Amino acid sequence: MNAEIISIGTDLLLGQVTNTNAPFLARELTSLGIDVSNQTTIGNTSERLIEAVKQAENRSELIIISGGLGPNKEALANYLGLDLILHEETEDKIITYHKNSNFKMPENNQLQALILADSIPLTNDTGLAVGMLLEHNNHTYVLLPGPADELEPTVNNYLKEELVNRLFEKPVLKSRVLNFFGLTEDQIHSRLESALRDKEEINVIVYSKKSQVAIRLTAMSHKEEDAENSLNQVEERIKGEFSEYFFGYEDKDLSDVIKDLLIEKDLMITAAESLTGGAFLSSLTSGLSAGAILEGGLVTYSNEMKNEVLKVTKKTIDSYGVISPECAIEMAEKSRKLFNADIGVGFTGVAGPSSMEGQIPGTVWIGISYQDKKSFAKHYHFGYKRNKNRELTVLNALDLVRRVVLDLPVETPTNYGEDK
Amino acid sequence: MNAEIISIGTDLLLGQVTNTNAPFLARELTSLGIDVSNQTTIGNTSERLIEAVKQAENRSELIIISGGLGPNKEALANYLGLDLILHEETEDKIITYHKNSNFKMPENNQLQALILADSIPLTNDTGLAVGMLLEHNNHTYVLLPGPADELEPTVNNYLKEELVNRLFEKPVLKSRVLNFFGLTEDQIHSRLESALRDKEEINVIVYSKKSQVAIRLTAMSHKEEDAENSLNQVEERIKGEFSEYFFGYEDKDLSDVIKDLLIEKDLMITAAESLTGGAFLSSLTSGLSAGAILEGGLVTYSNEMKNEVLKVTKKTIDSYGVISPECAIEMAEKSRKLFNADIGVGFTGVAGPSSMEGQIPGTVWIGISYQDKKSFAKHYHFGYKRNKNRELTVLNALDLVRRVVLDLPVETPTNYGEDK
Repeated sequence: MNAEIISIGTDLLLGQVTNTNAPFLARELTSLGIDVSNQTTIGNTSERLIEAVKQAENRSELIIISGGLGPNKEALANYLGLDLILHEETEDKIITYHKNSNFKMPENNQLQALILADSIPLTNDTGLAVGMLLEHNNHTYVLLPGPADELEPTVNNYLKEELVNRLFEKPVLKSRVLNFFGLTEDQIHSRLESALRDKEEINVIVYSKKSQVAIRLTAMSHKEEDAENSLNQVEERIKGEFSEYFFGYEDKDLSDVIKDLLIEKDLMITAAESLTGGAFLSSLTSGLSAGAILEGGLVTYSNEMKNEVLKVTKKTIDSYGVISPECAIEMAEKSRKLFNADIGVGFTGVAGPSSMEGQIPGTVWIGISYQDKKSFAKHYHFGYKRNKNRELTVLNALDLVRRVVLDLPVETPTNYGEDK
Repeated sequence: MNAEIISIGTDLLLGQVTNTNAPFLARELTSLGIDVSNQTTIGNTSERLIEAVKQAENRSELIIISGGLGPNKEALANYLGLDLILHEETEDKIITYHKNSNFKMPENNQLQALILADSIPLTNDTGLAVGMLLEHNNHTYVLLPGPADELEPTVNNYLKEELVNRLFEKPVLKSRVLNFFGLTEDQIHSRLESALRDKEEINVIVYSKKSQVAIRLTAMSHKEEDAENSLNQVEERIKGEFSEYFFGYEDKDLSDVIKDLLIEKDLMITAAESLTGGAFLSSLTSGLSAGAILEGGLVTYSNEMKNEVLKVTKKTIDSYGVISPECAIEMAEKSRKLFNADIGVGFTGVAGPSSMEGQIPGTVWIGISYQDKKSFAKHYHFGYKRNKNRELTVLNALDLVRRVVLDLPVETPTNYGEDK
């Protein structure tokens, strides 16, 4: 089966916003075994939409349209000769929402609750505008909301099930995402083959996301059990190949996994950050339950504050410099004491663009103080790009925490994120 | 003039890579006053390329194709009935490159040095495959290399000049971006008309980026001075209309502008963060020169740490609760003292998803302590989305700092970032 993705939005067309919906949809469709043959981005006019839909109809059975839900459903209704009908559940939701908020209900609110006659509504759990799936004249049309935080749950929670139900001979479809840190896509590709031997019924996609790499496995079968077994076998082999680099499943990133791990082990964490300036602490507090793993932490940018507030000794700073394993370790230990935590992480290094203490940009020491274990610091050299250095420093620190808590090797070469 | 962008690549089509070339090209073309009417992504086959080119020819004069340079120029040569000829400079470059490297020269190396007859080569400073621009039968075709680090320099250093030289009657083109915070796109649109009266030669785009809104003005003229004057006049009117919401120019965001402002005024800042967990400090340290404006700061997530490390009094916490203006002000004042700064910012609130102290998620107090001015706290209510709350809290705090330092009103209604 062929599919096309039509993205609507003047902001996309002008390049003001990068289109993340199209690659998301492409990955999801590919994982269902659907071939994506075309992606088009157009502005917000019904003429252009209908032109794009007509072209798509010549090539593909499944046509997915994201963004501009309101005008698009009207345009499509006209083009296909269908009525728009009221979807009462959505109308109720809109009325309830406006009752409970300070926002005045817009007069055209009913428009948001209209769907194409004969279509199946696709619930929008995180917004008001409802998506829909329509089968008409041998084509399947799908309309989705534009904001990614509405589109993605709609696809994951509702659209995929509808597609699987109606499009596949093998009705059971299972997929699983394995996430890795410290390996590149190429390193994974080159070693993946042996793990996949004899497992041709599994569809595999490798992709990178924010310096992390994911492998997505999809199995299709007649029986749930068979699909699950195939996935388990391949997962086992892949983990055998890449063992310690695997950190978690599905859409969890490294910081989510560390949070879960700390909660599970009942450990409190803190940090004293220099070059990362709060980014590590921020990554641990961005999700839920932050209070269960963190009471607080420090940003000590200047040498004075490392000494005055954090109490790193003048002797350490004078004898070894602040860009040193000794300073990183002392920052880890002192922050741990100050914030009464089980794990303290100390960050010191040169974010760039200038050198510091004779050390070139990208030089980083991460110190770890953990329970009654001997404290240590690990040396990294990233590249010359300041913000990339900060990002890689945060991720490598998270990975280091994971390795320490799980008693994995910490001397493994890490993702040095060269400037490409 | 209309343009279309055709991106080639199976990885793009499958969603393994997010297409950043298309938005980059779209922004550059838009800034030249060229309308981008369509973006298409297709796989690496000459049939699909020619199909996409034919469709583009019906709509647009300028057709830009990125990726798959080798096969694409052959396909295009066949389709247009043109020869491929050797570009000697590129051939020399390829031979020299392989002489000086360990990579064996591939046998088909000459292919990389071929260009379409009558086309103008677009030098690739960072790679081997040469781009080209061809004018043929009222269309302009541009072929560009796929990797972003080759495409972007080719566009910036060579393509833009070619386009400006040959496509514009009015050869002088000036553009300017004005950035605003605290207004929505709709609010700007509805009041923009009066500012633009009698200025039809100015091209205006309004777009939002991360809860901030930008207006991009482009003037085209025969004389540099005239273009500059038109821009100045419109800027003056727009600023008259939106005065205090304007915060800066071009691609600077609110945190960049605050950093520049603090450096200019020689002011040091610090913060004690609760619900934002380090995100405010992180935003101020992500660019350059962070050491000039910040010695350090604190994350005090738990009530205990607010008291023990930051020294917010137990009396304040017990009498008013932590989600209170009193606590926000004391956090601002105490952090300022601890980190020896001119400005202290205190953050307290409910990020969500649960309520705290009977306050609903999205309730935020930001406290400001600034030099010898009376400290104050401002109350906000954002939405129910935890991470959106954190983002809006950080941005509103940055804006509050800007207003305080520039002596602007602080009681103006702010961008409450409704959950849409």
